[in-house]
Amino acid sequence: MTTPCPINGERLWRTLMEMAEIGATERGGSCRLALTDADRAGRECFMAWAAEAGYSMRTDAIGNLWVRRPGSDDGLDPVVMGSHLDTQPTGGRFDGVLGVLAGLEVLRSLDDHGITTRHPVEVAVWMNEEGSRFSPPMMGSGVWSGAFSAEEILNKIGQDGARLGDELARLGWDGDIPADHRANPKAACFELHIEQGPVLEDAGLPIGVVTGAQGQHWYELTLTGQEAHAGPTPMRLRRDALVGSARVVEAVNALAADHGENACTTVGILDVYPHSRNVIPGRAFLTIDLRHPDDDTLAAMDADLRERVETIAAAAGLEAELKDFWHFPATPFAPELVVRVRAGAERLGYRQMDIVSGAGHDAVYTAKVCPTAMIFVPCEGGISHNEAENIEPEDATRGAAVLYEAVKETAV
Amino acid sequence: MTTPCPINGERLWRTLMEMAEIGATERGGSCRLALTDADRAGRECFMAWAAEAGYSMRTDAIGNLWVRRPGSDDGLDPVVMGSHLDTQPTGGRFDGVLGVLAGLEVLRSLDDHGITTRHPVEVAVWMNEEGSRFSPPMMGSGVWSGAFSAEEILNKIGQDGARLGDELARLGWDGDIPADHRANPKAACFELHIEQGPVLEDAGLPIGVVTGAQGQHWYELTLTGQEAHAGPTPMRLRRDALVGSARVVEAVNALAADHGENACTTVGILDVYPHSRNVIPGRAFLTIDLRHPDDDTLAAMDADLRERVETIAAAAGLEAELKDFWHFPATPFAPELVVRVRAGAERLGYRQMDIVSGAGHDAVYTAKVCPTAMIFVPCEGGISHNEAENIEPEDATRGAAVLYEAVKETAV
Repeated sequence: MTTPCPINGERLWRTLMEMAEIGATERGGSCRLALTDADRAGRECFMAWAAEAGYSMRTDAIGNLWVRRPGSDDGLDPVVMGSHLDTQPTGGRFDGVLGVLAGLEVLRSLDDHGITTRHPVEVAVWMNEEGSRFSPPMMGSGVWSGAFSAEEILNKIGQDGARLGDELARLGWDGDIPADHRANPKAACFELHIEQGPVLEDAGLPIGVVTGAQGQHWYELTLTGQEAHAGPTPMRLRRDALVGSARVVEAVNALAADHGENACTTVGILDVYPHSRNVIPGRAFLTIDLRHPDDDTLAAMDADLRERVETIAAAAGLEAELKDFWHFPATPFAPELVVRVRAGAERLGYRQMDIVSGAGHDAVYTAKVCPTAMIFVPCEGGISHNEAENIEPEDATRGAAVLYEAVKETAV
Repeated sequence: MTTPCPINGERLWRTLMEMAEIGATERGGSCRLALTDADRAGRECFMAWAAEAGYSMRTDAIGNLWVRRPGSDDGLDPVVMGSHLDTQPTGGRFDGVLGVLAGLEVLRSLDDHGITTRHPVEVAVWMNEEGSRFSPPMMGSGVWSGAFSAEEILNKIGQDGARLGDELARLGWDGDIPADHRANPKAACFELHIEQGPVLEDAGLPIGVVTGAQGQHWYELTLTGQEAHAGPTPMRLRRDALVGSARVVEAVNALAADHGENACTTVGILDVYPHSRNVIPGRAFLTIDLRHPDDDTLAAMDADLRERVETIAAAAGLEAELKDFWHFPATPFAPELVVRVRAGAERLGYRQMDIVSGAGHDAVYTAKVCPTAMIFVPCEGGISHNEAENIEPEDATRGAAVLYEAVKETAV
């Protein structure tokens, strides 16, 4: 006997489609770059819905919006559903937006069912998740979590020359509550998001129970051999930096298979010098991206990579310079919340699988300071950050229903 | 009992060093771009030496200079020693120059020894071999051999906007004899050249008997997969164009080993798209350069390449588009002249090896219409097209001596 779907899928889809009209692009996507008038229009539309439903709202000092449905013990820390309303320049209609509007739908559904929670329940609209106009991404959740200082972020200059602090003031988003998890603490954070990958679609499953986010280790590798003319230089006298690079690309690819199905390894950039049809490349530059949800495994992959690069370079007569470029530790989500997400999907009778988040999300920052979990729903072809981004209404409904169940169990 | 060295090595080296002063670069190289004032100064210096020795000179319609020492049967076709005096922008002191000045040294040495040849003996200074200011390279020998029409070449525009025909007229190099092997036929062409590769130095041998020039087959390959985010896309669902490219690079490299030690295979350019650290490359572009001195083997390599690319692309789920870009058939040199080069080195007691030319030379064009052979001498580290280009005076002497022997035997 499964629980009936607790939320109004038609209402949710209607709000999604209305929001998509704001900054709508010709090809069916949305463009609401952070802190632009379009971003304001999106947030004001959302705030109007929240006000209509009677929820209170406050903005913190870095422009995160907090929409609140009170709890019966209103002094308790709130349970939060957070995501973002800003988009990429040619963004889709669901990335971030689904998490925010499903949050609103959960509050409305709690009202519909006359449910009183002990904890207050909030929807957070995090400021500038995409990082497109102002870099880096995930600014609002990053400041709240202490990954960045507010001062550093307020002084960021956008691609159009605007200062972030000035844009916040212009929009009236320089709020009066501190952008700090210690001064504005939460009991738990949930984030419903489209998967932005092909796994759920490939498995034919509607719900991904996200157990954590991959740790990432990024590198830069320069291989140096000997530039020489492709004609008069016999193979046995060559020190070809591209042949060495090809072996590194293959080794990086094989590394994933050796460390289990959750390992992801990518060479995204490969540049050869002098870049001439008939000159043996004397130098090559590669970027390497290793990911795994477990830090110990990621460390083992790191050690493997170093050994393989050294072996390949030595065999090909190349010098190898392998530099660490960036490292982000694995982020396991709070087990008690992951269990609630899984149990919620089971009660609703939705087939689900555990999944790991490979992309960055606000939840990855909040998890550092607050119990956090995520729910994924499939998106068509795994395509995101693209106007063609698409999901099925039923999947939006199911995702919101699981969010409802997990939040209700936590806030009760 | 070996033949004593017939030429004056000290005189040869002195002319090489004097020529190197014209357009000398700070780092010890030479800059005499084709048809510039520096190129003229170089040619005029050479012509003064030739005039001093009493040789007649004529220029053909495309600016090739012919310096002539008469034969006893002066109506016979001349035996030619040809190369070039123009250089790369940061060129060396020996590329081309050695062949021309050793030619002069051979004429002078024939005088010294009081030798009369039946055939006239000529030194050709081919116009614009390097192709740096005006492209393509090997213009003068190409027109004489019929690879290009004179009209086509006269209308070429240089990197500085000058028209080639205008520059010829400016320098007075628009001569009165036809630039055509049929109207201005030769009995044989020899070219002494620095190897521009590492083979002779590696083997510790002073003379390379060049048996021919490699055939070349150039390709462009585009591999298309699926661009996707490096985080959320599991390995098994990827269609990574760079992983496929790496396998092609390795296969191209292995192709050489499968077709004997004279095969050369190079990927000089590899571009990946979208060229982002955390995006799986959806497309890659490669250039492929296959070379072999035997056309049948080159054809077998071509067939092998096509099969391997297809296999790799299919296994990696990629689309492959392999385009022919350029093809130049193998050029075997005239066996009777190759024998004379080898016999000359043997008489002189110089250790030698057969070698194949991997680079383009004027001799590769003349070989299409006239019996032709080449002699290589080692250059330091195989380095050429570089101000650091260097050879030992003894190697210049030995190369000129072998040229003398082969020319004398042919012109007698």
